[in-house]
Amino acid sequence: SQVFNFEDHSHRRYNPFSGSFVQVSPHRSKRPWQGQQENIIVAEQISYDPACFLCAGNKRVGGELNPDYQDTFVFTNDFGALTADFPTGSYEDGEFFKAKSERGICKVICFSPDHSKTIPNLSLEQVTAVVKTWKREYEELGSKDFINYVQIFENKGEVMGCSNPHPHGQIWAQESIPDEPFKKQLNFKNYQNHHQTSMVVDYVHAELNKQERIIDQNDTFVILVPFWAVWPFEAMIAPKVHLPSLSAMSDNQLKDLADAYSKLTKRYDRLFDVSFPYSAGLHQAPTDGLEHAEWDIHMVFYPPLLRSATVKKFMVGYEMLANPQRDLTAEKAAAVLRDCV
Amino acid sequence: SQVFNFEDHSHRRYNPFSGSFVQVSPHRSKRPWQGQQENIIVAEQISYDPACFLCAGNKRVGGELNPDYQDTFVFTNDFGALTADFPTGSYEDGEFFKAKSERGICKVICFSPDHSKTIPNLSLEQVTAVVKTWKREYEELGSKDFINYVQIFENKGEVMGCSNPHPHGQIWAQESIPDEPFKKQLNFKNYQNHHQTSMVVDYVHAELNKQERIIDQNDTFVILVPFWAVWPFEAMIAPKVHLPSLSAMSDNQLKDLADAYSKLTKRYDRLFDVSFPYSAGLHQAPTDGLEHAEWDIHMVFYPPLLRSATVKKFMVGYEMLANPQRDLTAEKAAAVLRDCV
Ligand SMILES: O=P(O)(O)O[C@H]1O[C@H](CO)[C@@H](O)[C@H](O)[C@H]1O
Ligand SMILES: O=P(O)(O)O[C@H]1O[C@H](CO)[C@@H](O)[C@H](O)[C@H]1O
Repeated sequence: SQVFNFEDHSHRRYNPFSGSFVQVSPHRSKRPWQGQQENIIVAEQISYDPACFLCAGNKRVGGELNPDYQDTFVFTNDFGALTADFPTGSYEDGEFFKAKSERGICKVICFSPDHSKTIPNLSLEQVTAVVKTWKREYEELGSKDFINYVQIFENKGEVMGCSNPHPHGQIWAQESIPDEPFKKQLNFKNYQNHHQTSMVVDYVHAELNKQERIIDQNDTFVILVPFWAVWPFEAMIAPKVHLPSLSAMSDNQLKDLADAYSKLTKRYDRLFDVSFPYSAGLHQAPTDGLEHAEWDIHMVFYPPLLRSATVKKFMVGYEMLANPQRDLTAEKAAAVLRDCV
Repeated sequence: SQVFNFEDHSHRRYNPFSGSFVQVSPHRSKRPWQGQQENIIVAEQISYDPACFLCAGNKRVGGELNPDYQDTFVFTNDFGALTADFPTGSYEDGEFFKAKSERGICKVICFSPDHSKTIPNLSLEQVTAVVKTWKREYEELGSKDFINYVQIFENKGEVMGCSNPHPHGQIWAQESIPDEPFKKQLNFKNYQNHHQTSMVVDYVHAELNKQERIIDQNDTFVILVPFWAVWPFEAMIAPKVHLPSLSAMSDNQLKDLADAYSKLTKRYDRLFDVSFPYSAGLHQAPTDGLEHAEWDIHMVFYPPLLRSATVKKFMVGYEMLANPQRDLTAEKAAAVLRDCV
């Protein structure tokens, strides 16, 4: 065709949440792949594994015994990257050497006692129990005066660095607001100053008007592929109404978040007929005691698979040194996921 | 110990080149690893592979024949992510939907006809031929009026998405300045406005004074682990004197860059006794026709391996959603690489 269009021509898209760009190269999908193949993903078959550190009643890496838990189970990570009990301090020498101690708490959250059941295999009630546990932890951790940000996330699958197949997520809570939410916060604030409305909710309604990148929805949340998606099947769960954090959410809204989480991961599992790997997590208001009307909670999913269960997208050379690059357009990815029912 | 120190306590370090942070968790090195193991890296044994798309005289993916080249060989990528020959245009709808066509040229550069010889296995003369080829390409591509930035890089190893073992690098040249060099450019400019000197060279001398993170050096370049390194054995090759780009460099300085590239990759190969994987590349002045006195050329290396030839660092959940995290301190990594002789 003779006119510039997204389906045929190389272009850059702007991400107004983080202020970054993605290079889109739709014509490149035809490239043959002769590089590394990932391991075939085999779903766990047994509900209880006596050697698992996370199954109920078993011994953990650190030697402690897990209780005989029934729904979710949360404990402090035996090898947390963030700890709280050490002397604080800072180091500054000119413009090049700046560091500061960082206190925090790392927790693990087992989704259920069943060793074989990932989020898409759990009932809505069970996923709702996970979301309610997130809320409790967000509030409990956030209320400590040295915790200003609570990062809730899940690494699913060996290819995403997950070292224990028992379905679980993590919570890293800390003093500083980390880079990614910090960048978003600046852009959300700017937007709110200009428009008196919040950026995430306005974006959700702009996408609802267009319909092109919507995968699914319920009363409270929309599941979509953002216009500026980086990973081949990246997706976002974002609210139709203003909800700065889990704390602002009613029981029904928590259930709707669980419903969206369940619906999206079910579609993912159908996409290549495997237990679909990803890193996912929540971005929401910091717990620094300030008002954060600029924030709306949203959940992002970064799955590595590109064309099949064994071929992933490598974010390497150009992507590390320049900016992220993708082949498939966001519109095509959304259409494929919309059809995965 | 009772005082805050880098070797025992969790902290954040600031990267003044890109304006970002890294979470350092030195106590976490003790964590046991039960997750994914990478394939054992087997070095290529044969100098010529009749099935290789990059060996001299062979047929490429696109069907063309490679010449019977003797040192380096450059060709336009048969499946380039950036192309030049299509209708340009832009799309803007409100604050959320902003995109622009992006023209460019992608090239592949074979380092030598020898299928088995990576950079650390080539002679200094051969590596110098690679660096001189970079200079020629940087100038040739950069002189085109729609090429404002030339990204030269190398993905080495299957684990870094490299799909052909024949030693080669890539050049992606394009209209826009991509995110990573763009961020650096802003910080370099700011620094130059304040100090009337250039940031990279001042940083190199600050590190030379401290000596703690220096791995090696020659007349023109220093090899160091930056204070704010993200990857376990990340390193940087940076100049002692002001050199905005390859174009500013004399033959001797080009040879010194080749020497540093060779020295660092030799140390890497000794570290875990394997052909060490990494993504590496140059950051240097854009080719947009403006003066760029704020820039100094430097080469960065992002290797994924963490503890052995088969255990890599996963930049996943927390790293994707919050900010990068490392266990080993930059000082320890530098000491280890300094001893790899
Ligand atoms: O160009 P190649 O070697 O086929 O591909 C490799 O490098 C590119 C540039 O970093 C990446 O976009 C690809 O994901 C990676 O597999
Ligand atoms: O905490 P885990 O599951 O042992 O470790 C995994 O997740 C962490 C948080 O994203 C990463 O820092 C590790 O690299 C990854 O292997």
